[in-house]
Amino acid sequence: MATMKDISKITGLSSGTISRYINNNGYVSKESAKKIQSAIDELNYIPNEHARVLYSKSTKVIGLIVPSLVNPFFAQMATVLESILNKNGYSIILYNTNDDMDEEINALKMLQGFRVDGIITGRSQNKELLKKLNIPVVSFESEIGDNVVNITANNFLGGEIAFKTLYERGCRNLLHIRGPKIFEATEKRYEGFISQAKNYSDASVDVISISEDYSTDFNIDKILDDINLKKYDGIFVFNDIAAASTMSYILKKGFKVPEDIQILGFDNSYIAELLNPKLSSVEQPVKEIAKECVKVLLKLINKEEVKKKTIRIKTNVVLRESTINLD
Amino acid sequence: MATMKDISKITGLSSGTISRYINNNGYVSKESAKKIQSAIDELNYIPNEHARVLYSKSTKVIGLIVPSLVNPFFAQMATVLESILNKNGYSIILYNTNDDMDEEINALKMLQGFRVDGIITGRSQNKELLKKLNIPVVSFESEIGDNVVNITANNFLGGEIAFKTLYERGCRNLLHIRGPKIFEATEKRYEGFISQAKNYSDASVDVISISEDYSTDFNIDKILDDINLKKYDGIFVFNDIAAASTMSYILKKGFKVPEDIQILGFDNSYIAELLNPKLSSVEQPVKEIAKECVKVLLKLINKEEVKKKTIRIKTNVVLRESTINLD
Repeated sequence: MATMKDISKITGLSSGTISRYINNNGYVSKESAKKIQSAIDELNYIPNEHARVLYSKSTKVIGLIVPSLVNPFFAQMATVLESILNKNGYSIILYNTNDDMDEEINALKMLQGFRVDGIITGRSQNKELLKKLNIPVVSFESEIGDNVVNITANNFLGGEIAFKTLYERGCRNLLHIRGPKIFEATEKRYEGFISQAKNYSDASVDVISISEDYSTDFNIDKILDDINLKKYDGIFVFNDIAAASTMSYILKKGFKVPEDIQILGFDNSYIAELLNPKLSSVEQPVKEIAKECVKVLLKLINKEEVKKKTIRIKTNVVLRESTINLD
Repeated sequence: MATMKDISKITGLSSGTISRYINNNGYVSKESAKKIQSAIDELNYIPNEHARVLYSKSTKVIGLIVPSLVNPFFAQMATVLESILNKNGYSIILYNTNDDMDEEINALKMLQGFRVDGIITGRSQNKELLKKLNIPVVSFESEIGDNVVNITANNFLGGEIAFKTLYERGCRNLLHIRGPKIFEATEKRYEGFISQAKNYSDASVDVISISEDYSTDFNIDKILDDINLKKYDGIFVFNDIAAASTMSYILKKGFKVPEDIQILGFDNSYIAELLNPKLSSVEQPVKEIAKECVKVLLKLINKEEVKKKTIRIKTNVVLRESTINLD
């Protein structure tokens, strides 16, 4: 790859002059500028970002930490966030932590080393570390507190909507498949669901917790094997990918969805449309959450004040075929 | 964030000495080393990677370019590649191009600017640019040629297997949903399928091409609306996510899978298990492909010779419920 030395050889100019021209931080005569630019074009020279960064204080890189790429919600968030950030002139360094706290700690260290301008983190488990970082951070799926702004779907409201959706469709014997207790967002969904259920004395709710999110190495069958599914007429699952896995199991066992058991997911991710029956799901407005994350992060980077520490985005249910049609 | 100057203040040592200690590239007395390390611990100082990179020639960063994160195959590839690379001490800068040639050109420029140690690129459309890069590159899903090593499932063989699988299960009126013609890997699947079909005069094959891969903004319905599906008893789709989308459409139209129409995907990605009926699919051995990609890339980075320019990994079919059970 062409270096500054090569430009120096061709132009006969000092590396100081060339560096001033490339980094636009000092006087260079018009004649020299022309010589340097033509050498850059000829050599197809691409400036070393690391050198630029050392002089400019801004890296134009954002760190993105997600717990999973096979969970469609996070895949969609990463896709949309990257697209918006690219349009704003930022590149992304992505870390996928598989919900492993140590991998997340390592990712944060690396991102500090890279002096990223900011970090967007999803479902973080390292609140204390994030609070202490001297880098602008925006979080989704976890409320960190202090100076870290949290952008989130209104998960508690989403849980309430989930209960009402199933109750209105006749479900009285409900099962909630609750996410791992370390996931704040899914805990809020659980709380909203239970809180709403308390208002209806003719409905009963059982809850089973699972210890990790769906992954390609883990599936829900082992847990569902111990459940007497005949008891239930409605199941609310903490996210779409786990709902897909649950529905796959239930259909295999010979139940009809939604006739025997209605199923409701959470996220409204792209997988909902691809399943059969298509999955009804409480929406997380991905584009809106992602836009807000970037908007707030850029404000923090520009040292503008961000007053609200938690921004909750409204959610609603998207009805498809895994719940009964009331029309 | 703590800087080298802060360490200098605490220790009273010059930045030259401190830099030699941190970058391990020159003499530092035991006493000074001790002082510096205790200051580093006290300040929680994290060395600036950009400075380290300028001195060390190696960035320990790999660029990963994928065309999609909502296609489960690429999400799984990115997950596995990142995990293996992290274990080898490398971080990843990820670009998701959405199959957009200009976004890919931009990604390659950025990665050159970051002086990444190597690049892994999936389904690239910029062969000429990749050939000219003075950085080790490994490609999957596209054969670039010259010094770029290609690691790929044997897609032609996979296409042949696809035809035989459907033919053996009684399909005689076949439809192949062919990927965009710019996707080399899926073109090979098409060629293998057609080549095998020529050996069987009692089978007919129709082919329709689609212009882009499944994405959350695009679906296959508009194309399938123009097809008389009643003609067909078997469909081979170029990848799993498009097969999921096709099967969802076919079921909505009232056809039974596999009784009326058998469906076979390609990738054997995690989505195959989640669908109903579960999708039969020709396997791309993700872990094997990813391992081989990293193995070859590390060899190239270490300037070891890599003789084979194309490494084809054996594939086979994984039968589930979307094809008829012969047992």
